[in-house]
Order: sequence, then structure tokens, then C-alpha cells
Amino acid sequence: MTPPILAESVRLDDEGVHILDRRVFPFEREWVLCRTSEEVAVAIEDMVTQSSGPYFAALGAMVLAAREASGHADPRAYLRRAGERIVATRKTNNHLRKAVAAVLSEVDKAGGDLVEAATAGARAGDELYRSRSRALGEHTAALVPDGATVLTHCWADLYLVEFVLAARRQSKEFSFFCTETRPYLQGARLTAETLAEMGADTRLITDGMGAAVLASGEVGALVTAADRVTMDGHVVNKIGTLGLAVAADAFGVPFHAMVQAPDQAAPTGADVPIEFRDGDEVLSALGHRVAGERARGHYPAFDVTPPRFVTTVVTDRGAFEPGRLREYYAEGEANQ
Amino acid sequence: MTPPILAESVRLDDEGVHILDRRVFPFEREWVLCRTSEEVAVAIEDMVTQSSGPYFAALGAMVLAAREASGHADPRAYLRRAGERIVATRKTNNHLRKAVAAVLSEVDKAGGDLVEAATAGARAGDELYRSRSRALGEHTAALVPDGATVLTHCWADLYLVEFVLAARRQSKEFSFFCTETRPYLQGARLTAETLAEMGADTRLITDGMGAAVLASGEVGALVTAADRVTMDGHVVNKIGTLGLAVAADAFGVPFHAMVQAPDQAAPTGADVPIEFRDGDEVLSALGHRVAGERARGHYPAFDVTPPRFVTTVVTDRGAFEPGRLREYYAEGEANQ
Repeated sequence: MTPPILAESVRLDDEGVHILDRRVFPFEREWVLCRTSEEVAVAIEDMVTQSSGPYFAALGAMVLAAREASGHADPRAYLRRAGERIVATRKTNNHLRKAVAAVLSEVDKAGGDLVEAATAGARAGDELYRSRSRALGEHTAALVPDGATVLTHCWADLYLVEFVLAARRQSKEFSFFCTETRPYLQGARLTAETLAEMGADTRLITDGMGAAVLASGEVGALVTAADRVTMDGHVVNKIGTLGLAVAADAFGVPFHAMVQAPDQAAPTGADVPIEFRDGDEVLSALGHRVAGERARGHYPAFDVTPPRFVTTVVTDRGAFEPGRLREYYAEGEANQ
Repeated sequence: MTPPILAESVRLDDEGVHILDRRVFPFEREWVLCRTSEEVAVAIEDMVTQSSGPYFAALGAMVLAAREASGHADPRAYLRRAGERIVATRKTNNHLRKAVAAVLSEVDKAGGDLVEAATAGARAGDELYRSRSRALGEHTAALVPDGATVLTHCWADLYLVEFVLAARRQSKEFSFFCTETRPYLQGARLTAETLAEMGADTRLITDGMGAAVLASGEVGALVTAADRVTMDGHVVNKIGTLGLAVAADAFGVPFHAMVQAPDQAAPTGADVPIEFRDGDEVLSALGHRVAGERARGHYPAFDVTPPRFVTTVVTDRGAFEPGRLREYYAEGEANQ
């Protein structure tokens, strides 16, 4: 089947990098064309894309930088500076660092044409991310019985797409509930749209309805992505995940959290500071004010789900109980 | 202190019944003037007011009906028909039945002037509701320690107002988190506004943030109203209550549910059918579409919290453990 549009939302061609504008998706399907690596950096800063989007945009930006580099005295130095600029656009996003490293390592290895090497590096980075997501989707789909209804939260991006595709390869079909995920409504705008685009039976609920659908007996599994999983099994993900995980536990529904690999830089849950964003961001929906002028908002952007509420952490190397994540690295470092 | 505007949002005068339009509050402060009992019925049908608002509107409508009755052959029959019309506006709202009964019982008792009797009945109904809410607020405030931060959900109406006022009489001051309560944002529009109007420190969160603030250690109590509490201690309330109650239990925060009296017509949780509303209602916020055209919504309007997640049911007769609600009626029927 044709992949859903969000699975191919960054495209590199001779003109530049085309990025689907997730800020207005799905109400409008606009592509932002970035003709230079600097324009990609600005687009990332302006939140034109999010989730895995910046990873693919950064790969493309590095190819543009390699094209730009020929006019400079030290083309490789130019490329490295362009990489630093890209990584600096969102300081806490590991994706950007990995994308830039994927291109630079290929450039360092290959002696020849810079654009060719950068293009090969970008292609390898693209394929690596997609193959790891595919493995992750495969392992997750294996955990969920055919015909199950799955509750998901926010936008699990390629992991979710690969989960649905893997299910079909396994001759399974899942139905979905997805939460709208206020304040930015990624669940309503990205997940509901993409699942529907893929032909999966999908119902959108507000963020307060998760416990009721989990208690109803209708849901076979809670499946979300994780921004990060600590080595002791804490799942850091979009605010709202914790409440769903606690309710899933209370009503006997397994919770599978998807992440490519647990994070060796975060041994415990205490090592992950919670990002608080400006409280004003909760005071509106799609740019329209939801409360009076007197109201003040509060916005923890992520929450941390303790391992006692997590059934499985699913990685590209298979499914692990949250207390056994060290086994992930038993085969050595992940190729990131 | 002056009561907040939502505590006095229905006013009866010589012109008719003035109802604050909660559909546009707090963005606009418009009063709908109903000159006849039929106009009040239509306003209730049109959702101009909600929660306890229809109760007070119905009291006023019965006074208007008494004024209209003098031109009719059988004024008391006219008044009874007007009462039937009011009760029929929202079939599942017990408030309306009680308001109409409060006026008719006074009219049946008093032999004299119909308007005088109806006015006295409406006044008695108004005072009864407010005094029971005041008692409820007093008992709830007694359970929460001074300086606590309270998480509340949706709009607990007069119970919440009386809870804050009682706290101050008890020389306590609480801070609040309130959930926005999608899809209709009663928490954002009514609760956050009213708490701020009362000078209470208040932070608005989205519905997915409740578990994170409960896990943070910052919250001393979860306090909500209940639409209904069954005799075996199930709390039926606005969708979202269940998830907060489960998270409160998981993180050791007490949950106090406020209701004037447990419902003898509902012996167990299984006796309460969950109302499903049109799924399309979750697809927009303040009239603006939140999802693409392909999305389909799902809208359980209430959820049922089992007694194991409820610490206290607070009534006008005091606080009860959810397993001991029969004791409420040990002193006889409530005067409803």
C-alpha cells in the first residue's frame, strides 16, 4: 500500500528540501520548500515539522550544505558548521545530532565527492531509522492479538505506521482509539488522520476519556511511543501517557511503550528533568482562547511513567520487561 | 465577599427571568431575558445554562407561569402544565423535577394568591438548594488541610463556590489545579474563571495533565462534584473523573466526591447506564474543527468510578466512606 503522507513528509530533490507543514496539517496540505541548509534550520526552529520530521529534515539539510560547500575555501569545515547549526535548532532533540552524525561519518569515511558522500550518508541515515522503526513495529504487532482495539496517545509517528503495516504482514487487523492530545492536538490532527488514511478503524477521544475506554473492556492494549526510556524502565513521553498507563494497569490492559533503544545516558527516572513549557500555551486551542483573561495555565510537557505501570518496552531488538532493559545492550551498543 | 457571577446566574424580576448565557461565558457576559415560562423552557432546551442553572431557571419559570395563570380558566391546571413542560425540557435532569415540585407543593399547601404562593415556593426551593450546598461545602473543606493544592475537574458549580467560601470561614486557603474538560471546556470557561474571580490561586491544565500533577506530590486532594452516587459508592460524573480518581489512588492522594445525597434509585454502579453522545461533538473545540474530515469521534459523556478509587463521598449530611452510604438515610429521607 502507499505509505501515509506523514511517513514521507520530508523530500529532497534538486530544488531543495520540501517539508510538509505539520502546523496546519491536516486542514491544509502545504509543503515548505527550503532551498538552503539555513532555510531548513529555520523551518525546524519554526516547528514546521516535529517528532521524527526534524531527523529527516536534518539529513536533507546536510545534503544541501554539501551542495553549498563547493563555493567555500574549506568545504568540510563548512559542512561541519552547517551540522552544528542544525543540531542547535532544538537542543534537546537527539534526532538532530544523530542525523548530522550519520552524514558526517559517511563524509569522513569517503574521500571523494562531498555531495555524493553526503547523499550516501543521508540515504543510510534514512534507511537505518526506517529499518529500526520497522523492526520495532514488527515486535510490537507480535504482542497484540488479532482483532484487538488499541488505545494510542499523541503521535507515535513511524513507529505507529510500521506497527499497522507489520500487523497486516502478520495477518492481523487492529482498531484504534486515539486521544486528541491537547494542547497541540497531535492525536487529532496527525494520528487520527494517518490511521484513517491507512484504512484502520479509528475513533478519536478527548484526553479525559482514556480511563473510561480502558475500563470498558473494549481495549486490548495501550501502545504509545516513548521520547525516552531510562535504563530502570521509566517511560518519558508526551504529557498524558502516565494517566493512561495508570488506568491501563488498574483495569488489566497491557501497556507497550515503543522506543528504538533505552537511553544509557539516563540510568534512572530521576535523571530525566521534566520540561515545563509556558503555561499560556494551554490557554488556547488552534489559536482560539479557551479561558478568560484571568486564567493562568500550567504546562508540564512530558510525564514519567514508573516501571510498575509499564508492561513491555518494545525496541528494535525486541520486547523487554521494563526491569530487564540492560539486556538490550547485551549484544553490544546499538548502531545509532 | 460578593459571590461570583456564576453563583447568581439566574435572576427573577418583574420583567421575567434573566439567565446568564453559559454558552459564551466568560468570553461574553450576556444575559438572556425570558419573559414567559415557555421562553425559559426554550432557553433550557437551548442549553443557555447548565449544571445547577436549570434548577434555578425552573424555579423562576414557575413564578412566571403563576403570573401568566390568572388569565386562564383553571390557573392551577395551567401551572401544572407549565411544570410538565419545564420537566420535559431535559428528561434526565432531576433538578428540574425537584424545582417544579418545590413550587407546586407550596402552591398546593397555600390556599391564597397563586403568584404569592409560587414565589414563596421558588424562594424556599432556592434556599434549600443553597443551604444544602453550603453544608456540603463546609463538610468538604473540613477534610482538606489548610494550604493544600486541590485538583478539581469540570465545573462543580455551587458546591465548589461553597467549598471555597467554607474554607475561608475555617481560616483555610486552598490553591487549585483545574482541568479544561474537553469537549465543552467547562473547566477552562467556568471553573478557572470563577476560582480566579474568587481570588483563589488557580492553574488551568489540559485533561491529560492530571496524573502528572497528582504524581508530583503537589496535590493534597482531588475534589469533584458527582452527578450521581450509587448506594454502593460508585461515583458517576463528567468523563475524565475516573482517570483522575485512579491516578489519585495510585499516588496516594485522597478523592472526595461531592453530592447532596446518594441516589436510592441506583443501588449499584450497574444501575447507571452511561450516556453516549454524538461522537462528532469531540471533533471540534469552541466550534473549530480539531481533526480532518476523515476522523470519527467517540463520546462517552460520563464515567463511573468504582468505590475502591473513592476516599470519601461528601454530602449535605457529612462525609461518608463509599461503602457506608446507607448511613446517610439512617436519619430518614433527605428533604429534597
